[in-house]
Amino acid sequence: MPADQGVPPPLAVTFDDVARAAKQIHGSVERTPLRHSRTLSEITGADVWIKFENLQFTASFKERGALNKLLSLTPAERKAGVIAMSAGNHAQGVAYHAARLGIPATIVMPLGTPFVKVEHTRKHGARVLLHGEGVAEAATYAYQVKDREGLVFVHPYDDAHVIAGQGTIAGEMLEDEPGLEVLVIPIGGGGLISGNAIAAKHLKPSIEIIGVEARMYPSMHAIMRGEEPVCGGQTIAEGIAVKQVGEMTRVIARALVKDVLLVDEPHLEQAVNLFANVEKTVSEGAGAAALAALIAHPHVFQGRKVGLVLCGGNIDPRLLASVLTRALVREGRISSLRLIGDDRPGLLSKVSKIIGDMGGNIIEVAHNRLALDVPAKGAEFDLLIETRDAQHTQEVVDALASAGYPPRRL
Amino acid sequence: MPADQGVPPPLAVTFDDVARAAKQIHGSVERTPLRHSRTLSEITGADVWIKFENLQFTASFKERGALNKLLSLTPAERKAGVIAMSAGNHAQGVAYHAARLGIPATIVMPLGTPFVKVEHTRKHGARVLLHGEGVAEAATYAYQVKDREGLVFVHPYDDAHVIAGQGTIAGEMLEDEPGLEVLVIPIGGGGLISGNAIAAKHLKPSIEIIGVEARMYPSMHAIMRGEEPVCGGQTIAEGIAVKQVGEMTRVIARALVKDVLLVDEPHLEQAVNLFANVEKTVSEGAGAAALAALIAHPHVFQGRKVGLVLCGGNIDPRLLASVLTRALVREGRISSLRLIGDDRPGLLSKVSKIIGDMGGNIIEVAHNRLALDVPAKGAEFDLLIETRDAQHTQEVVDALASAGYPPRRL
Repeated sequence: MPADQGVPPPLAVTFDDVARAAKQIHGSVERTPLRHSRTLSEITGADVWIKFENLQFTASFKERGALNKLLSLTPAERKAGVIAMSAGNHAQGVAYHAARLGIPATIVMPLGTPFVKVEHTRKHGARVLLHGEGVAEAATYAYQVKDREGLVFVHPYDDAHVIAGQGTIAGEMLEDEPGLEVLVIPIGGGGLISGNAIAAKHLKPSIEIIGVEARMYPSMHAIMRGEEPVCGGQTIAEGIAVKQVGEMTRVIARALVKDVLLVDEPHLEQAVNLFANVEKTVSEGAGAAALAALIAHPHVFQGRKVGLVLCGGNIDPRLLASVLTRALVREGRISSLRLIGDDRPGLLSKVSKIIGDMGGNIIEVAHNRLALDVPAKGAEFDLLIETRDAQHTQEVVDALASAGYPPRRL
Repeated sequence: MPADQGVPPPLAVTFDDVARAAKQIHGSVERTPLRHSRTLSEITGADVWIKFENLQFTASFKERGALNKLLSLTPAERKAGVIAMSAGNHAQGVAYHAARLGIPATIVMPLGTPFVKVEHTRKHGARVLLHGEGVAEAATYAYQVKDREGLVFVHPYDDAHVIAGQGTIAGEMLEDEPGLEVLVIPIGGGGLISGNAIAAKHLKPSIEIIGVEARMYPSMHAIMRGEEPVCGGQTIAEGIAVKQVGEMTRVIARALVKDVLLVDEPHLEQAVNLFANVEKTVSEGAGAAALAALIAHPHVFQGRKVGLVLCGGNIDPRLLASVLTRALVREGRISSLRLIGDDRPGLLSKVSKIIGDMGGNIIEVAHNRLALDVPAKGAEFDLLIETRDAQHTQEVVDALASAGYPPRRL
């Protein structure tokens, strides 16, 4: 890859564009904190610094690019208004800043977009059009409305002003911690990494830019290798589940990004959990991708001063709850036990007394009297129990076994 | 209450003690951010500023008092070591800073303390003694060990150095935002509110100090009213579930605290949820008590510039997951529907097709063939479904009804 081979080729966005964007948006977006994490450094073996873009008003970095784009419009364009297609963070960013600037905004969202997201966008004063089964159909429709009504389309990533706006993060990071050696940046369409690669490489040519994608959507990863990306699946990082990166962003990434790492779902889940449990911060799946990369590929970052962009915090509460709970299952604090007894009265009472006496907590009981792997007169139970930790679970299992009810761990 | 009647009586801790503590601990505890919340201001009708003490290294304010106490020890006391009783934030605060200073620390925790908390404390190098069925027994044992081994006891709140250390928060808040008119501070034993009342009232005599307790543990609330507190129950704010406030802290609170407000469990849950969903920050139940007070008693704070102390972020992940999920049930995004059919093959398939076609998600199915409120040939199902929002749930219910399967909402 040509990233480290000296002067990059001329690109669609320059450092001056980013510097101008930084001046333009100053005071209207949060200058988010960069914080060192001692515990995550210990866990990953790198020297970990986190840029908390989830603390933007709409909880993602998308405001930076959206605002820079809006500020680039002519008076006539401002008057006509803008349109964007997004069911996510870009929608909030455009709607919020357009409202602030008095620019009419239309947001096209696919049918079935959660009401709360529609409401959030409407609350900023945007006109929301629900159209299309998925993002592709919704995007096509948005372009139709744009043409029909003479609006300006605000692309989520393949736009020089948007890229320059997103690129304002790296300068803040290097200002706060000039010693950063690597920036780790999630890639959806590539706007975030392109802008910040341009800025960071200008400010500190020795810095390394590493991209991260969910393994289910390895679009830029494939392009960097001259391969055809194969995308699909339900990732928890839906904010970066993009099948095709931008035309502009892929050229910039090829020139300046050292490598794109892929992360699996368990890494993303672990990263969301670490942010919640260690850093006490709420990250969406895509927001946790950079930390997931440190977990998945520790050797790349060992002993280096690494800046992670925690790019967004808009995770569905049910997904967050599920990720938190699944971690407890992995840690052995929530376990499923199968017990076979003799189907005489009092069995559940005996078993649950043993578990209760041991300090375990029964969350769920299911009887499977029809299961064929037990004798006709036997009974099968599945117990979901909660314990203090894996060792405590083992103690409960042992106690059941020595009382004559050896459970099977499911 | 005499709080606003001019010069307070002489108290066990002075502003100079707090100012000295601030100098002593400077650089060794985080100077946590104070951030304005536009959304929480909109929701509560107050002008809301949050002090993020959950961003301390051990995720609570307790480090401030513990460190100030440790720094007050004589060389002989340092050498002998300290002892504390706590299964929570105080344990971490003492263990962490004692290790930093090379002071041997012993922490007594009640039997059955979650292994992860024992491990966290041990990891800081403390000796952990597990003893006693509850905190009272554990405390008695800790005093015995203290006497036997000649250690210094670090009380979690009823200690002048601890109180002075906790009191260093208010000065930081007023430095960042001098316009604050009210500070809202959770009360467990009263150390946090005492120290900060002393500091804040000295720096800005017009400021109002409001305490918050969980309704299940209204210890200071009762004392302020000359009543006998009645305490008990499982609150999610276990960090402030204290049956008896300190001797020193009650005198200070009586002199300087305007009022103590009580909050119910749903308010605490709502506050934890708002912190996660709006501020993208993880709060424990006690940490969310100040925000809960704004939700429960909005008239007290209407239009005023209010500083909330988010005092800790150590919430059990399963409790956090449960609080997040319960909010979705309250919002109608997760609902339980009971359906009665004719027990012929294909019923579940028909019903689940309708729900699926509507974009609903079936989380759980339970058959109750033995229920007596259905005809003998009938079948009863309970379906737990997830929808986009309450309106979507209603649409699913309507679709089932018009297909001949009117559900009952449970």
